[in-house]
Amino acid sequence: MASIDTVGAITLDQLQLAARNHGLPLEALAYPITPIGLHYLLIHYDIPAVDAASWRLTVDGDVRQPLSLSLEELRARPAVEVAATMECAGNGRATLAPPVDSQPWLNEAVGTGAWRGARLRDVLDDAGIGDGAAEVLFSGLDRGVEDEVEQSYQRSLPLDEALRDEVLLAYELNGMPLPPQHGFPLRLLVPGWYGMTSVKWLERITVLDAPFEGVQMAKRYRLQRDEDDPGTPLTRMLPRALAIPPGVPEFHSRERFLAAGPCVIRGRAWSGWAPVSEVGVSVDGGATWEEARIERDVDSAWAWCAWTYEWQAEPGRHELAFRARDEAGNEQPLEGEWNVGGYGNNAVHRVIVNVGSGLSRHP
Amino acid sequence: MASIDTVGAITLDQLQLAARNHGLPLEALAYPITPIGLHYLLIHYDIPAVDAASWRLTVDGDVRQPLSLSLEELRARPAVEVAATMECAGNGRATLAPPVDSQPWLNEAVGTGAWRGARLRDVLDDAGIGDGAAEVLFSGLDRGVEDEVEQSYQRSLPLDEALRDEVLLAYELNGMPLPPQHGFPLRLLVPGWYGMTSVKWLERITVLDAPFEGVQMAKRYRLQRDEDDPGTPLTRMLPRALAIPPGVPEFHSRERFLAAGPCVIRGRAWSGWAPVSEVGVSVDGGATWEEARIERDVDSAWAWCAWTYEWQAEPGRHELAFRARDEAGNEQPLEGEWNVGGYGNNAVHRVIVNVGSGLSRHP
Repeated sequence: MASIDTVGAITLDQLQLAARNHGLPLEALAYPITPIGLHYLLIHYDIPAVDAASWRLTVDGDVRQPLSLSLEELRARPAVEVAATMECAGNGRATLAPPVDSQPWLNEAVGTGAWRGARLRDVLDDAGIGDGAAEVLFSGLDRGVEDEVEQSYQRSLPLDEALRDEVLLAYELNGMPLPPQHGFPLRLLVPGWYGMTSVKWLERITVLDAPFEGVQMAKRYRLQRDEDDPGTPLTRMLPRALAIPPGVPEFHSRERFLAAGPCVIRGRAWSGWAPVSEVGVSVDGGATWEEARIERDVDSAWAWCAWTYEWQAEPGRHELAFRARDEAGNEQPLEGEWNVGGYGNNAVHRVIVNVGSGLSRHP
Repeated sequence: MASIDTVGAITLDQLQLAARNHGLPLEALAYPITPIGLHYLLIHYDIPAVDAASWRLTVDGDVRQPLSLSLEELRARPAVEVAATMECAGNGRATLAPPVDSQPWLNEAVGTGAWRGARLRDVLDDAGIGDGAAEVLFSGLDRGVEDEVEQSYQRSLPLDEALRDEVLLAYELNGMPLPPQHGFPLRLLVPGWYGMTSVKWLERITVLDAPFEGVQMAKRYRLQRDEDDPGTPLTRMLPRALAIPPGVPEFHSRERFLAAGPCVIRGRAWSGWAPVSEVGVSVDGGATWEEARIERDVDSAWAWCAWTYEWQAEPGRHELAFRARDEAGNEQPLEGEWNVGGYGNNAVHRVIVNVGSGLSRHP
């Protein structure tokens, strides 16, 4: 585990990914629903340019009646809105050691959207799920090369997860048609799961009688101890608390500077397994912990909660740390655990704050 | 000058910046006006949370009548819309050698917005510019630490530039109120200049009788050969052409794969000095060049143009390169020139494409 002060060398490959993809600037944790443009983005291949007028969604495989639906037909169905927090399964990757060679997230790959769309289950019911159905496969229009094979981005869900009430075929984000980068014209939304599950630019939904073995299921998004370990699939988001870093940043280091005195630290926390039950705050680098006050300000079981902590900031250099626990008993570890893909590292968020440092000021 | 295949090690500081800030995914060059969320972002400090109801813009300094304007008062003035391409002065920094320690842009820090607002000149005329006026200073609500001084982000403009017809106090982007990350509720827009000029989260406009010597003018955004060189200020954008990389990407390396045969390469080009007069395309790594066809598809002298080039892609690994020239005679260099801040590196865009590589495909 690298300390907060060091990170391995980043390659051109990783920098190219970091320049395209982006996290949530942590001050945007102030918003219950993340404004468009601040939600994290991980785009595997290229954003496809889709003509909504000619686009259709195909529903096929083990169904009694294959469907081909236009965007208008989907919009004419009963609509459901779900506010959901979404996090990349690779969040926290860049602080693991030795370095894992992929998108180098620190801890900011998260956002909460107000998603609106048709219920997936209703569409599958119309198609008529076959008796042998085991999984549902989702294929996007985005194409690229992985493991030397050109392919579409494809992920599957076990049938029982696909049939959950809150799983949507979403065509709106925050009251607007989906932006191109979030999957226009239609994406899957699976609340509670890491973001790779919520396939963007949906083209096809296929009911399968056996587990799908494509790259994104069999090779990626698995917790593997080493390359020979088949590992276990990533599914739901582990708990995590993040803070709006207090004070103001130094441009370059992003280290924080704050006047001494009372300071309300604000942040958000979430878990895909169960509601957040507790957020701990340490102002001494993790030696001692106190409880933050939790406020559920988004009316959704699938969205993050807000938390506040009143800190009496005394002069000096302090390492703050933040840790969430959920009602299922999951708790953030103090140190992340290395794995082949660098997934699921929900080690506690740490922020260095320089209090009352005697900096000069001008307007 | 680093080759296209290498880049120096990136520090945690730089990675933190790269995770917050982001470029334009190059496939988004397809859009004449960049959708919100795809335009590049460079946020010096934190995005301030501004209450538009209590916010006011102060106009003071060497004026006959200081003003304090609400957002409603600004919106009630005659409105002007300008489509403008904006680029970060540090675009291209990450390919300079030795590495320059700041936001590590490759070449994607650009976007084009449809900005709407009040004309700055009209507001200054209402305040009455004093006879000794030399510059206009713009102060943002964003605060941070640079050179060990806590400060607001502040940049000045020579008076004649501030009085240009197309310089706006913008409150809308692409038909919507400014998003938080683009300067809500009000930002300056100086078409043709690098983005650091277009101060976001505007709080105050001050007419000055002498040049402003703040950090962002005297220490940053200058072309300096070495630390002892006072350098010259960055102003207008140098010409640059970028291409939508043809074919599909490999996820990790972002290297491109394309079937052999005819391929229309599309891209965009801009210059802040004069209209783009020519875009050159090389399909042999820069040894020979042909002219692309230019199409001015955005009705604005301040926005990029589109270009297309018909390539007969033959099997093999090709290095494509793209180079713009403007009517003022500025042309992109083949290699960037190192400078202290890593600014203004408009070396030609290069893309590696593997044609007809015999990759297997599945849906």
